[in-house]
Formats: sequence, structure tokens, C-alpha cells
Amino acid sequence: MKIALAQINYHIGNFKSNIEKITNAIKKAKSHGVDLVIFAELAISGYPPRDFLEFNDFIEKCNAAINKIAKDCEDIAVIIGSPTFNSAIEGKPLHNSAFFISDGKIQYEHHKSLLPNYDIFDEYRYFEPGKKFEIISLKGKKIALTICEDLWNIGNDPLYTINPMDEIFKHDPNIIVNIAASPFNYKQAEIRKSILIKNVEKYKLPLFYINHVGAQTELLFDGGSMVINKKGEIIEELKYFEEDFIVVDTKKLNINPDKEIKTQPTKIELINNALVMGVRNYFQKLGFKKAILGLSGGIDSAVTLAIAAEALGSKNVRAVLLPSAFSSDHSVNDAKKLAENLACEYEIISIEESYKSFTKTLLPQFKNLPFGLAEENIQARVRGVILMALSNKFGYILLNTSNKSEAAVGYGTLYGDMNGGLSVLGDVYKTEVFELAKYINRNAEIIPENTITKPPSAELRPDQKDSDSLPDYDILDEILYQYIERRKGPKEIIAQGFDKQIVKKTLKLVNTNEYKRYQTPPILRVSPKAFGMGRRIPIVAKYLSR
Amino acid sequence: MKIALAQINYHIGNFKSNIEKITNAIKKAKSHGVDLVIFAELAISGYPPRDFLEFNDFIEKCNAAINKIAKDCEDIAVIIGSPTFNSAIEGKPLHNSAFFISDGKIQYEHHKSLLPNYDIFDEYRYFEPGKKFEIISLKGKKIALTICEDLWNIGNDPLYTINPMDEIFKHDPNIIVNIAASPFNYKQAEIRKSILIKNVEKYKLPLFYINHVGAQTELLFDGGSMVINKKGEIIEELKYFEEDFIVVDTKKLNINPDKEIKTQPTKIELINNALVMGVRNYFQKLGFKKAILGLSGGIDSAVTLAIAAEALGSKNVRAVLLPSAFSSDHSVNDAKKLAENLACEYEIISIEESYKSFTKTLLPQFKNLPFGLAEENIQARVRGVILMALSNKFGYILLNTSNKSEAAVGYGTLYGDMNGGLSVLGDVYKTEVFELAKYINRNAEIIPENTITKPPSAELRPDQKDSDSLPDYDILDEILYQYIERRKGPKEIIAQGFDKQIVKKTLKLVNTNEYKRYQTPPILRVSPKAFGMGRRIPIVAKYLSR
Repeated sequence: MKIALAQINYHIGNFKSNIEKITNAIKKAKSHGVDLVIFAELAISGYPPRDFLEFNDFIEKCNAAINKIAKDCEDIAVIIGSPTFNSAIEGKPLHNSAFFISDGKIQYEHHKSLLPNYDIFDEYRYFEPGKKFEIISLKGKKIALTICEDLWNIGNDPLYTINPMDEIFKHDPNIIVNIAASPFNYKQAEIRKSILIKNVEKYKLPLFYINHVGAQTELLFDGGSMVINKKGEIIEELKYFEEDFIVVDTKKLNINPDKEIKTQPTKIELINNALVMGVRNYFQKLGFKKAILGLSGGIDSAVTLAIAAEALGSKNVRAVLLPSAFSSDHSVNDAKKLAENLACEYEIISIEESYKSFTKTLLPQFKNLPFGLAEENIQARVRGVILMALSNKFGYILLNTSNKSEAAVGYGTLYGDMNGGLSVLGDVYKTEVFELAKYINRNAEIIPENTITKPPSAELRPDQKDSDSLPDYDILDEILYQYIERRKGPKEIIAQGFDKQIVKKTLKLVNTNEYKRYQTPPILRVSPKAFGMGRRIPIVAKYLSR
Repeated sequence: MKIALAQINYHIGNFKSNIEKITNAIKKAKSHGVDLVIFAELAISGYPPRDFLEFNDFIEKCNAAINKIAKDCEDIAVIIGSPTFNSAIEGKPLHNSAFFISDGKIQYEHHKSLLPNYDIFDEYRYFEPGKKFEIISLKGKKIALTICEDLWNIGNDPLYTINPMDEIFKHDPNIIVNIAASPFNYKQAEIRKSILIKNVEKYKLPLFYINHVGAQTELLFDGGSMVINKKGEIIEELKYFEEDFIVVDTKKLNINPDKEIKTQPTKIELINNALVMGVRNYFQKLGFKKAILGLSGGIDSAVTLAIAAEALGSKNVRAVLLPSAFSSDHSVNDAKKLAENLACEYEIISIEESYKSFTKTLLPQFKNLPFGLAEENIQARVRGVILMALSNKFGYILLNTSNKSEAAVGYGTLYGDMNGGLSVLGDVYKTEVFELAKYINRNAEIIPENTITKPPSAELRPDQKDSDSLPDYDILDEILYQYIERRKGPKEIIAQGFDKQIVKKTLKLVNTNEYKRYQTPPILRVSPKAFGMGRRIPIVAKYLSR
């Protein structure tokens, strides 16, 4: 039997585009003499459709799409994911379903049993778990059809009280199919492979695994669909961060001895590729072409510009240098040099006149109070107004350039440098931003060396340095990682050898700045715990905040 | 047996304050000779603790608090809610638990079975459902202990496949206790009573119901705890929007024939009271006293100011009039008159100078392009910068004045009038804002009549009216209600008789402005479906958006 895996970049709610891509893949599979073509979880709707699932209109459109696709399947079989109505009186209104279509008809509808409801997942918000464990048959092969999480309850720390594959296994299948929507983070590909191989080892069956690829706002899907033979060898691995399509003959599931062994990309390479795809898809799917950003001469905006230029093309990215009286010459020069290296359009717009107009306007209120945070923020906000004015006038999307360390401790101005349609680096710690810069410079100096080596500064008052108000980033980022990614409390972090006062100060900064993060743009998620939909913290709370 | 209900305003993660309030209520109960005092669901942590629940440190602090409280219960029994670790290997790491404490010891730990995971609820994100249905005994009475949703699976459209009270009922209880965290919306009190009475009618048992009161950022808890006798009569109803404490003797569960019958508050009165509590608690719990806001002379900022003045006291609210060249004289006069009526401090700061500085700065880029949206937005953003500068300099929190209709269709400037620490009216449709204004004026003209009667305008260009770009609010709000609150699709709304083009345009505006709402301040939730944590829509989607 010939099985195709169609790894597609879907667009949530864009039924026209999704159906077209699916139909084209079915055509292509037919032309290869394929018996069964497999598409991802909730392929019809895109993943995650979130509260669109609460609209009957949306589910009806999904049903109509499935029926339309079924008509193309007279002489080929298809497995594809879509949300469906739960026909029982009791329980949640929907199922997360996988359709098995052949002979032009829906033959079987499998319902996902294990519904992830943690981090960025909210599936139990919508779906009733499936409780039927059957099997499908095609050309003499018995297929165990599973949906993503259905295979994930296999470790020593089970999150669910049942294991659907154990039930299906009783029907003596020959092949496991798993259709998935498994979002990227820099650890995920490794974890995913290990979980899938564990299943193969347990059930001694070959596994066909299909994932989404492409960005859905903050969620990045890296693809990497695969076929694993029953020895636990990955015999095919589809592309990462790109659409792909392969055909595998079930008679030929031995590893090809000539197969080229791919080198595993580094964490930083993965992050770079994910961010490029994230920016590119955000613009494509919104129907925008051009980005604008403020280029300070510092490392965050430099890395953001380089990524945007790779994602959108240099000619589609406009850099604006917005110097103030506190900007150093080297900042302007570094920024210029970078824009020139990348061949991006840039211009210099001084914020001095507008900054002064505010201090003049506010003179009766501010009187002779000393220069302080309010004045620092005015500068950042004047920059924000100028960038948004250009964005509004010429149809650019403003890219936010804040990093995860800043976002964590609230080192940024709300309605100023925290502005933007999309945060590119909001899930990348400062120390990782430096590594990204070095990665971007791997073949040639794109980002000026001086941008990388000089001490970070917001340049909002004379001789300001980040280290004036924050711990060194080496220390800060490690504490943040323990607190944010690993959910360690103060005692546990201090026990690791970090200074008690620095830990307490850091956690307090994180928790008291939740209100700022509530209003930040969506952040491209590259870590196992990003700010945004996967991290939900009360604002008006009093925990670790004094 | 004498039972006390302690209706308390908890603060999430503020263990010191929560323990103090609980301990004081136990003392008070003892002084009344009470046998059992009942506190709300997750009283120890406050509700909802959200992802703080993922920190072992947080759960350990909850456990420590319970143990501390148990020591106070040598001669009184207590029922109280707290999160606990799940001791089983399988399943989610926590339970949502109710402790039964007597003789200074924890006697029983009940785990919530039905975990709401819809709208603003995310309980299955954290908790494993309880599957043990036992009973507790005190002074010869058998008590069925249930937690909130455990009693809610009673209608014709059951969301869950089990009904915990049916199981507990097999043990032949004498009393039902339900500890809850049931957030306010203007329909909730009515629904809540009807669900509880249905339970009483089904099981023929008296019911003691205890709820939270007070605001937790966007979520407002209205209190209204109650005692229902087995005839289904509400014999005691605790205060709404305030802390309260009552003692009831189980021997005296007949309705008092002299009981004063309270008039049911109107929807608008409920919304007003909820918003006042929401603003007040937001400031109290953050440790702030003073608010600032931009007062335009329009109805939204007028109603916001009146609510803030009631919540915080007139002397704690500063109104800033920020006229431009397009502001009408009547706007400034109406705004002044309102501030005077409320005895709030106000001042006039012209935005002209700063606005002009931007148009001058941007002249090389904008050249001779006609005045448009970019220039309108600059005005709104200049106002934003000035208000935030005053907020930063003097420690005010900026109140956002946008209403739900504007938030829905994106009629507002990001980083301009959409700024603020808290949105007071973001869940109140424009037509409801008018009703609120009339309610505020019920005894005297606080809000100038002219503010209520003049046609709404953003005053960002000459002679602008909201009706230039939006359908009339009467129509718009009805369509929005069908789409947002009732999740009706375009076909269903058009079938109700609304104009097809207006419906399509409206839904498109709602969906394409999701990106703006992503960055708005938290919105006090007063309706059954508010923007914010209870409505989760993808940004980069293509559904009803063309």
C-alpha cells in the first residue's frame, strides 16, 4: 500500500485556501498511485481555531468542506482532521475528529480521546473526549487511527487515566497513524520523536505521523512529519518550517542504508528558522507585505531587522532611526551600518522637537520636578507615535523589538517601545539574542560587531546602562528561566545558589509587571513557556510581589 | 445546629490578608456559638489563581495556610476551599478541594468533580476531577459537601456525563453545602438561584450556598450567598457587592413571614454597582489610590468619571480635558460642568502644540498627502502620551474610557484612547452607556444633559460623527449582541431581519480588529460574554473577515 503524507501550512478559518491545498495534495497523491493520503489534525479549520469553534456556522462550514473533499475521494482514501458536532445529549458540544474517507464517502469518524488542556492548549474547552476505540481497514491493512495527544500518555508521569492506543491495540492493527498539531518550541522536535518512538517500541508497529507546518499568530508549527518503521527507525522525515509531501510504500519500511544523515540543527538555528517563518506567515496570512521598525543601534532591534529582512525581503522592511539627545553617535552609526549591510531602506527622524513639545505642554503640571521615569517614557512614546503614524500612513505593520528578559521584568515603556503588531523576540532571552546575532553573522558581519559587544542601554538618560537597574543578563536570564520555564519558587531557585536578594527582586519584577505584558503584542513562541496564551497569571494578585 | 456563612473579598495570592479575614470570621462565628462556619471555593488562594497553581511553592503556601487555620478549629467546624496536590500517579497534578475541619484537624477532603472549562473558566487546566462521593457528619447531621459546578449539571443540556450530587445523595444526607466562586454578569444571579432551587427541588434538602465577593482584575464576584430551605424558599440572602456574615439555625429553616421582600435591582443598577466595586477593588488590591482620565465631553468618559468618583471618592480622581482644533466648545463646557458637578479636580491641556510638532517632524515623509487616519490617530496618541506622563509622574492609574461597541468594531486608537490600566466600560455597549448615564442622573443632573443628547463623535476631524462610519448604535449593538454574546453566525443574524450588508460589515469589523483587542487593558466583565479571558479568538485568521 502506498501512503502519502501531506504536510501543509493551513490558515485558520480560511476554508477556501485550506480546501484548495488539500484538493491539490489529493490530486498529486492520485498521480503517484497513492492508496491513502493523510492530512493533519483539524486540517480543515486550521489549528487552533479557538472560540470560532463556538459558532455553529463555523462547524457547518467545516462539515461542508469535508463533504466537498469526500467527493474527490472516489479512487483514493483520505484521513483528515476536522471538528464535528457531538451527537450525544450529554457532554461538550463538539469532538476533535479524524475522518476516514474512501469510495467518495465518509467511512469512519474517530474522536480524539486525550484532550490537551495545558500551556497553549484549551481543547477541553470545546471537545468531548472520544470513548470508542475501533480500527479502520484498507487494502487488507488494519490501521489504528489516533489524534496527536492520544499517543502522548506513555511516560512515567501520566496526565490522563486512560491510554487510547492500548484499547485500539486489542483490535490487532498493522499500522499506527497519528494526525497532529504539535507546535514548535526549541525542545519539541526531540520530545516528539522520543514519544513516537516509545509508542513504536511498545506496540511494535510502524507509525505514520503528520504535523502542521506554518505560523498561526504566536504559535509556530515546525512540520517534521515522519514515518517510523517497527524497529523504531525514522525512515522518512519531512521538511522543517516548509510544506512537504512524500509517498511511502508500506512494503518498503526498511531504512535506506544510503540515507543521508542530517545534522541536528542547534537550538539557535531552530529559533532563527522558526522566527523567520513566524514573521513571514504573519504578514502573508494577514495580506500585508511591509514592515517598519525602530532601529536603535542596540542588539534587539538589530536582530529583529535581520530576521524581518530574511522573512519579508530587504525591500519590504523600513528601518527608522529615532535619536534623542541621549543617543550616542555610535548608536546611530551602528544602526546605519546594519541597514546598509541588509540593504534596507532607512531614515533618521529626530524625536527632539516632539519630546520638547511635551515637556513644554506639561510645564505647568511638572513645574520644576526633576527629570525621571515620566520623561524617559515620553521619549519612548514619542518614538511610538512616529512609528505608528508611518505605519498608519503607508500600511506597514510595526514590529516590536523587545526581548523576553525585558518583557519579564517590565523593562520597557507601555505604548512606547512595547508597541507593535507582532513581537519577534518576546520569547527570546537577552543572552539568546546575543547568540542569534552571532548566528546571523555566521558567514559575514551583518550586525555590526560594536552592536554585539557594547553594554546594553536604553539611552533614555545620560550614560544609562541596563545593568544600572537590572542584574547582569547572565544571572537574570538563568533566574527567569527557573521561574518562568521551570515554575520554580524562590526557595528552590535560591537553593540552586543564586543570591537571595536578586532572586526576590527578580520575581517581584516579573509578577508586578504582569499588567504590562497583558497589553503587549502577540509574541512568537519558541520556548516551552512563552508569555501569551500559554501563560495565564492574574494581574491584581499579591504573590511573590513584595 | 448553627451554621455561619462568611462571604469574604479575598485577594489572589495574598495569603496574609486571606488568612486574617478567615481567622477573624472564625472568631466571630465562635462568639455567636456557631457549630460550622462555611467559606468559599479556593478561599485560601483567591479565585481564580490561574497559573500560580503551577508553582509547587504556591500550593505549599495554601497547605500551610490550611494547617494554620485548622489550629483555630478546636471548638468549631469549618468548611473551606483550597487547591491540593493530587496524590495519585495518574491525572492532573492538583485537585480543587473542600476541607472539612473540626477538633483542630482536617477530617475530610472533598474534590470537585465537575470542572468548568468554558468562557472565563480553565479548571481542567489544573485539576483532576474528584471521583469519590462521600458524606460528612457533624452533630448528627449528614452533610453533602459540593463545590460550585458540582450542582450545575442539572438542566436539559448537560455538559458533563455524571452528576456528583446523585452519587452523594445515595448516602442519605440532611443538608447540602455548596461552596462556590461564581462570577457576576448581569444575568448570573437569576441563573444561579434557579439552578440552586432546582437542586433543592430534586433532592428535597436545604442548601447552604457561599460565594466570593469582590473584584479580581476583570472578574467581579457579586456575593449573594444564600440559604434555601427544602421547600425551595430563599430564607437568607447575603449582600451583593459587599462582604457579609450570617448565622442560621438549622432548626429554623422556615421563611420569616415578616421578611422584607427586596426589590430586584435592574440590569443597569447591577452593572453600575458591579463597575463601582470593580474599580474600587482594582485600586485597593494594587495599593493605588488615585485615578486619572481624559474627559472629552462625550458620554463614555463622563460615565467613567462618575463611576470612578463613586468608587474612589471625588478627590482621588483627576480629569484632564485635552482639546484639539476639532474639539467643539460644547465639549469643553460639558466636560467642565461634569467635573464641577462631581467635585473632581480637572484641568485643560491643549494637544495642539504636540500635535503640530509631529506633523512638522513627519513633513518630509508625509509631504503633501491629505489629512487622514494617521493624523486622527496622532491626536489620540498625543492625548495618550500626556495622560501617561501625568500617570507616571504622580502615580495615578489611567482609566480607559472605551465602550464595548467601539472595542468590538475597532473604533479606537491603539496606544491612544485605548490606553489605560483598566477598562471600565469595555463590556458595556454604547446603548447601555446611555442607560448608565440616565441611571447616574436618577436623582440629579450629574452628567450634563447635552452630553447625553448630542450625537456621539470622536472629534478627530471637522464635523465628524460616529454615524459617518458605523451603523446606528441601536442596530449595531443588537448585531454585536447576537454575534458576541449569542455566537450567532451571519445567516442566523440576517434571518432575524437585519440588513445583510450591515451584518457582514459589522462581523468583518469585529474579526479584523481582534489584533487591537489583544492589546487592550483588562475589561471589567459584566456581561455573559466579555472581551478578555473569556473570549479567545485567533488574530491571523480568515473567518467572516472579507
